[in-house]
Amino acid sequence: MFKGPVENKNEAAMSELVPEPRQKPVVPMKPMGINASLLGYIGIDTIIEQMRKKTMKTGFDFNIMVVGQSGLGKSTLVNTLFKSQVSRKSSGWNREEKIPKTVEIKAIGHVIEEGGVKMKLTVIDTPGFGDQINNENCWEPIEKYINEQYEKFLKEEVNIARKKRIPDTRVHCCLYFISPTGHSLRPLDLEFMKHLSKVVNIIPVIAKADTMTLEEKTEFKQRVRKELEVNGIEFYPQKEFDEDLEDKTENDKIRQESMPFAVVGSDKEYQVNGKRVLGRKTPWGIIEVENLSHCEFALLRDFVIRTHLQDLKEVTHNIHYETYRAKRLNDNGGLPPMTVETEENHESNL
Amino acid sequence: MFKGPVENKNEAAMSELVPEPRQKPVVPMKPMGINASLLGYIGIDTIIEQMRKKTMKTGFDFNIMVVGQSGLGKSTLVNTLFKSQVSRKSSGWNREEKIPKTVEIKAIGHVIEEGGVKMKLTVIDTPGFGDQINNENCWEPIEKYINEQYEKFLKEEVNIARKKRIPDTRVHCCLYFISPTGHSLRPLDLEFMKHLSKVVNIIPVIAKADTMTLEEKTEFKQRVRKELEVNGIEFYPQKEFDEDLEDKTENDKIRQESMPFAVVGSDKEYQVNGKRVLGRKTPWGIIEVENLSHCEFALLRDFVIRTHLQDLKEVTHNIHYETYRAKRLNDNGGLPPMTVETEENHESNL
Repeated sequence: MFKGPVENKNEAAMSELVPEPRQKPVVPMKPMGINASLLGYIGIDTIIEQMRKKTMKTGFDFNIMVVGQSGLGKSTLVNTLFKSQVSRKSSGWNREEKIPKTVEIKAIGHVIEEGGVKMKLTVIDTPGFGDQINNENCWEPIEKYINEQYEKFLKEEVNIARKKRIPDTRVHCCLYFISPTGHSLRPLDLEFMKHLSKVVNIIPVIAKADTMTLEEKTEFKQRVRKELEVNGIEFYPQKEFDEDLEDKTENDKIRQESMPFAVVGSDKEYQVNGKRVLGRKTPWGIIEVENLSHCEFALLRDFVIRTHLQDLKEVTHNIHYETYRAKRLNDNGGLPPMTVETEENHESNL
Repeated sequence: MFKGPVENKNEAAMSELVPEPRQKPVVPMKPMGINASLLGYIGIDTIIEQMRKKTMKTGFDFNIMVVGQSGLGKSTLVNTLFKSQVSRKSSGWNREEKIPKTVEIKAIGHVIEEGGVKMKLTVIDTPGFGDQINNENCWEPIEKYINEQYEKFLKEEVNIARKKRIPDTRVHCCLYFISPTGHSLRPLDLEFMKHLSKVVNIIPVIAKADTMTLEEKTEFKQRVRKELEVNGIEFYPQKEFDEDLEDKTENDKIRQESMPFAVVGSDKEYQVNGKRVLGRKTPWGIIEVENLSHCEFALLRDFVIRTHLQDLKEVTHNIHYETYRAKRLNDNGGLPPMTVETEENHESNL
């Protein structure tokens, strides 16, 4: 079990010692001489259990945004993902509700607990997007909202007296709903993803995929991937952020085969072969949303929740937020954003 | 397994939604109405496994400092803790080596892997401490070193272009070695802990505890605890940082019974009842360092490595580093420390 120390620089300079995370060590790892390791277990790997305990106590934030024209099943899909009515339209949704005249941003918070782990989930909906006669620049309020969350985090981060854990309202994941036209992406789709893919993790999904046959779906997916590539749109998981070969292999498969996930959502339960399933009942059969031979919902769920949730948060923090922060500080001559009071103080000093 | 959403505010304001970590939710958790939760497992608790995978890839830093007069077995104890020759005196240590004329700070880095988890361990030794004729202010170079690591971290943190993970050279834990006199703490012990307990996590240990009988040990421990209390010295785990009742219960036991751990170290192996153990052979028997009826080494190891390592890192970051940072920014009028270039730029603007 115990592999012993693999690197040992004697009396090296004080602070250059700790190897930089994720970099290959400069000094090749070499086993030490005799007597280097003593018998028995140390307990280094208990750090995992210690971290688990901390996470069980604190829980974690996850903020997901849904964007796409009305009627594409955004709310239903999010409800299906989290197996509960987490979307704004969940209770008392009135089908007569008017489509807003401009893009609105609506966020709802929930706490969902499973296996003792608490997730503070915020679902951010964007009603009105793509629903106007003229949809020019309708991505702007969305970009503004995303940046405002970065700004809020940055302000908190540069505060002298900081919170122990900065409340995280940053959008970790943006599901973009593509209409299942079977033709091609529309200019608005491209425009949105082109602008927003630089500031947020976009995961494109083909909505209401039950309107397509298997062949149509395969062909449409290929076409969408091609169009995204031709237009230089990098969706999540971005190639450049793969951290090692294992990541690359896993993510290449997602990028080249799964994306965009062709999904069907449902918050209705049916009995199929004695089992209760989430599905959509049609005269020709029940579409089971979690049945992989029916649609790719289960793939999307596994991807967003079960394999890449932590990574979505880390890419948001390490890449998108850092990019915002660097730009903000550069624009400000290297100084952090100030509160109004401080700016006034400065002026009175002049 | 799935407990369903327990909090649901409809159409609430955008950003006040996410409850603050570790605070009790303002809105009492109440189960939602019928149809709120759908059947099946979501996968929220897979976050633990996702975090485990990330930690397995990146490893973690741990920096431990040992302070105490020469001859108290500091190097041997650290070697015993990590079951390997991690201390500066490990290889080729020359018993003729002179005690330095001033306090020196020597850091050595190692990578130790166990159960697939990599720990980047740095052991910081402080030769010369307490070994002079006049030991006035001999805690100062140590405090300076500790603060320099905070400064380094802070400079990195306020940089415009930051590293993805800031190299962490901050001292997470300081083992302070008390001489097993059986009498009381000496003025230097009190002086050191009084000054340093504000800036670093101090864990006092009674060195070479095999020189004391059980009764002497019990009495000495009680006396040391009393003296620390009378002098207002807060060692780790500090009462004020207990985060919940579970923490408090566990830590109270350590504070009131285990502290200061009376330990014996050894990097020699012996055969006892057919088993190989780490120990010290005397004419009257073998002292087994990991045998709890012989000494409290195993308690110390469990505490530092197996239960509180992550917490040592978090208290360092959330409390000691934050205190340093707030003071530094306050002294600087709320501005981050600047590089020389920036300061020059400023001057040339005047």
